[in-house]
Amino acid sequence: MRLNELQKNIELKKTYLCLGLDTDIEKVPPHLNKYSDSVFEFNKSLIDRLHNKIIAVKINTAFYEANGTEGWSSLTKTVDYINHNYPDLFTIADAKRADIGNTSSMYAKAFFEKLNFDSITISPYMGKDSVNQFLKYENKYVILLALTSNEGSHDFQIPNDLYLNVIAKSQDWEESNKLMYVVGATKDDYFEKIRALIPESFLLIPGVGSQGGDINKVVKNLTKTSKNILINVSRAIIYASNSKEYLDEAEKSVDYINSQIDFK
Amino acid sequence: MRLNELQKNIELKKTYLCLGLDTDIEKVPPHLNKYSDSVFEFNKSLIDRLHNKIIAVKINTAFYEANGTEGWSSLTKTVDYINHNYPDLFTIADAKRADIGNTSSMYAKAFFEKLNFDSITISPYMGKDSVNQFLKYENKYVILLALTSNEGSHDFQIPNDLYLNVIAKSQDWEESNKLMYVVGATKDDYFEKIRALIPESFLLIPGVGSQGGDINKVVKNLTKTSKNILINVSRAIIYASNSKEYLDEAEKSVDYINSQIDFK
Repeated sequence: MRLNELQKNIELKKTYLCLGLDTDIEKVPPHLNKYSDSVFEFNKSLIDRLHNKIIAVKINTAFYEANGTEGWSSLTKTVDYINHNYPDLFTIADAKRADIGNTSSMYAKAFFEKLNFDSITISPYMGKDSVNQFLKYENKYVILLALTSNEGSHDFQIPNDLYLNVIAKSQDWEESNKLMYVVGATKDDYFEKIRALIPESFLLIPGVGSQGGDINKVVKNLTKTSKNILINVSRAIIYASNSKEYLDEAEKSVDYINSQIDFK
Repeated sequence: MRLNELQKNIELKKTYLCLGLDTDIEKVPPHLNKYSDSVFEFNKSLIDRLHNKIIAVKINTAFYEANGTEGWSSLTKTVDYINHNYPDLFTIADAKRADIGNTSSMYAKAFFEKLNFDSITISPYMGKDSVNQFLKYENKYVILLALTSNEGSHDFQIPNDLYLNVIAKSQDWEESNKLMYVVGATKDDYFEKIRALIPESFLLIPGVGSQGGDINKVVKNLTKTSKNILINVSRAIIYASNSKEYLDEAEKSVDYINSQIDFK
């Protein structure tokens, strides 16, 4: 997807909401167990119901890998289903990969060719030559971990302002126009410093909902310079209920979140 | 595998060599294409031939993910084959994962339960709570990225001694006796500082062979305080030849590498 399409879709749908499919096979509503691939059926039903009210879908690879080869198949079917039916949804492989160059080129092949994701989350620890293999692709994006939502961000990201160094240095790399950044919703004390460095870059923001981030602060403080943000919510939507009415409950949750987003 | 078993195997086999299965389906000897899963057949034949001369097998997940669901199946069959036939081989999922706690617990399930690997490589960027889900498992190990072999290690790992902070801080975590570290063979200038901090920890050392690391310096400088090292070689062994004699050539390569290891 081109960046201007994503921006246009945000304006059309008037939301920044990204649906996080952290689909745990053990939490799928029991009445779906009759299907041979209950994870895919669950994902498909959520996307069918919610696609008009969300801007992006983030698929968390861990939850699929935990089911082995069958899980990888559910993952493949889900992204194929989105690409085929809802090409206006921006797709994110939340995979947090990166390795030396020849290995990263294989990960890029896995997620941008074999699976046709629009973007992938990448850990910056191994530096430029672990990231640039992903940046060679047209209309594909790298979402670099900057400041994550979890407690462990205080171990290495915040000391010596590593998260700011990651942002500043990566902005000097070739094709840095294809870089987006993960910034946790729980890290509102740092929003201003981040937007000062990258006023226009897209930010993927996890940590709203179950992790306690405040959606009002996110929207107020991160959209001053541009509307380029994606707010991810996973558990609060997909596990809103595990009854037969799970889609109604998921939609109510989406409606509530969208009502909290002060879209101007 | 228990650590003392791994140490005993090193003494018995008199080698530190880890076979890296970075198996690119396009580089498998063409005569193996008759098999429905040429990647697995290639891996199996290499392990059958070399198991007595190596201590560990490292499977690089990127190369399997690039083949989609079929690739994940090849990966699964390979680790199952090793566990069933050669339980004396220490297995490493070179996956470089890590995420927030509930996601990391899914990765741990994927690699330690669904796939029964002995260990997994992990990126430290997200800190303690992204790692400790893996450390809960008995006789399973986390191999934390410290100082990698690639050029990009100069971007974030070396400035402000981040690699040393990663080592020092992680040593204070619970169950840190299950931590090993990745140290690139190309980083011999830093070996002394690293061993001063962790004289007894196992180190996984990539970067010998195609990447130019000097195996003599590795052995000489990293085994002064303990024999706890694993030297990974991938391409120089598995792609020694793609003719029908590829196993003979792979074995010659292994014999040459082992002859270079001054095992005392």
